[in-house]
Amino acid sequence: MAEKIRIGILGYGNLGKGVELAIRQNPDMELAAFFTRRAPEALKTQSPDVPVYNVKDAISKKDDIDVMILCGGSATDLPVQSPEYAKYFNIVDSFDTHAKIPEHFANVDASAKEGGHVAFISVGWDPGMFSLQRLIGNCILPNGKDYTFWGRGVSQGHSDAIRRIKGVKDGKQYTVPVPAALEKVRAGENPELTTREKHTRECYVVAEEGADLARIENEIKTMPNYFADYDTTVHFISQEELDRDHSGIPHGGFVIRTGTTGADTKQMIEYSLKLGSNPEFTSSVIVAYARAAYKMAQEGITGAKTVFDVAPTYLSPLSAEEQRKNLL
Amino acid sequence: MAEKIRIGILGYGNLGKGVELAIRQNPDMELAAFFTRRAPEALKTQSPDVPVYNVKDAISKKDDIDVMILCGGSATDLPVQSPEYAKYFNIVDSFDTHAKIPEHFANVDASAKEGGHVAFISVGWDPGMFSLQRLIGNCILPNGKDYTFWGRGVSQGHSDAIRRIKGVKDGKQYTVPVPAALEKVRAGENPELTTREKHTRECYVVAEEGADLARIENEIKTMPNYFADYDTTVHFISQEELDRDHSGIPHGGFVIRTGTTGADTKQMIEYSLKLGSNPEFTSSVIVAYARAAYKMAQEGITGAKTVFDVAPTYLSPLSAEEQRKNLL
Repeated sequence: MAEKIRIGILGYGNLGKGVELAIRQNPDMELAAFFTRRAPEALKTQSPDVPVYNVKDAISKKDDIDVMILCGGSATDLPVQSPEYAKYFNIVDSFDTHAKIPEHFANVDASAKEGGHVAFISVGWDPGMFSLQRLIGNCILPNGKDYTFWGRGVSQGHSDAIRRIKGVKDGKQYTVPVPAALEKVRAGENPELTTREKHTRECYVVAEEGADLARIENEIKTMPNYFADYDTTVHFISQEELDRDHSGIPHGGFVIRTGTTGADTKQMIEYSLKLGSNPEFTSSVIVAYARAAYKMAQEGITGAKTVFDVAPTYLSPLSAEEQRKNLL
Repeated sequence: MAEKIRIGILGYGNLGKGVELAIRQNPDMELAAFFTRRAPEALKTQSPDVPVYNVKDAISKKDDIDVMILCGGSATDLPVQSPEYAKYFNIVDSFDTHAKIPEHFANVDASAKEGGHVAFISVGWDPGMFSLQRLIGNCILPNGKDYTFWGRGVSQGHSDAIRRIKGVKDGKQYTVPVPAALEKVRAGENPELTTREKHTRECYVVAEEGADLARIENEIKTMPNYFADYDTTVHFISQEELDRDHSGIPHGGFVIRTGTTGADTKQMIEYSLKLGSNPEFTSSVIVAYARAAYKMAQEGITGAKTVFDVAPTYLSPLSAEEQRKNLL
């Protein structure tokens, strides 16, 4: 067997933990090291044999890591880390602030080229797999319309927003696609759907003792950007119920492209994900793109890349012949 | 606007007609010429301004065609045409005899490299879009299982087989996925499914006057390879009913990848197509890959390619910046 692809994990939250587990499912890879901003000895990983270093020592390990997976957040971590580490490593990140992707791409591209590395940005399922389906759907059915629905799943951002409200002890928010909207799209009706018509929001809230529930519910439902444009339901439950029934991080969604060909012939492409764990799935996507980053770097390719820029053959551990024989 | 991509269509059956219409939906392309084995003046196309040539003259037009789309059949046309024309043109074919793909790839690869062209083989939806989903699904969820279902849709091969039976005037066969099997797969049960459990076959048959219907039904249901391994229903109808209710060529299907990540977390990826016209959709896929062939050839890439070998960015008429901004 060829040498294994040595992966580094930088950041050990839900995503880092998911990457740790995903690597175990890929025999052509090995987890070489963790990098953390915490005290290394304080980090309890699920891989006791894998060394943990402080991020300050990352650059000194650059010859031991084939691909560094950056598992930080999009708000403040990745805008700094991705351009920084792309100078020294092939990297994969999951930058998901859609509006800032062009800027992030440009920054990462410059340092990846300077360092002679491949740097995948915005890898995951949206952006990521959903983007791929949108792009291909647009190319195949140019006379058509895209629909993306998210859920049923936990939105971390909306859950955080609930938890910031005074009197809220804990909470979880589910984004839910509206079945009637999905059915209209699938029926090829090409509906124009408002934000409210596409998704509803379900909140499970643990209030502090004696808190004003009516005020909390009202603050949630009228919160601009997060909830005001949606039909939102608020359920007050106990901490025990929340822990018992809402501890998972499921997610998923749908990308649908409807269009016509020839003399108004209806055609429909639908891609859907039903994910038991959002971060574990995102991690699994990232790990496949880490393989692609490694292979592309071996061919001398450099610069920032997205899921649009990689031929699918690079994602697979199989040879091109095996891919054609078994999967085409 | 940049110069348009000049497409040639070789073969004018259902697929050629679909390509003709698909090109009209892509403003960066133009249909430059048809090539036919028939007498050119006998070919009635839907594009009276586009010249029709005999295939014998194809090579003399090689400087007028950027990509030649080969619309012949996989049984006898493409095994000869694709290696032949890849010497002179960038080509796209829809070769779909799965078992012979490795051989076809090798033959086409040799002549495409000799001629310095890009030659896409096996483009369409299966092989094609379904293959892409299988490959990516396998890479993301290595600990999982693939399921491909076809239909509900018309199988040309099975319809032909019915029509060859003595006493049959006309007929159409639909391949239908078994709903219970689909549900088991979606529920993450990872069932082992036999051929019979996955699909049923529905036949609509017009018998000749006085024909022995019981014998025809029995011959269909017991026909090896085509029907014997399936639960098959046979409906005898009139030619008027067949023409009225079964004149379309719809198709579609499902590629489902189920798998687990982490500590047995269930994950599911589902891709489905619901096609009003199988050849028109296949043509639309082919035309998108013709764009990719053109762009890749401009970069000096040569040889045989499949859907696994092209970065999705090449399929799109948009710039990489626009793709990232609007679709990522």
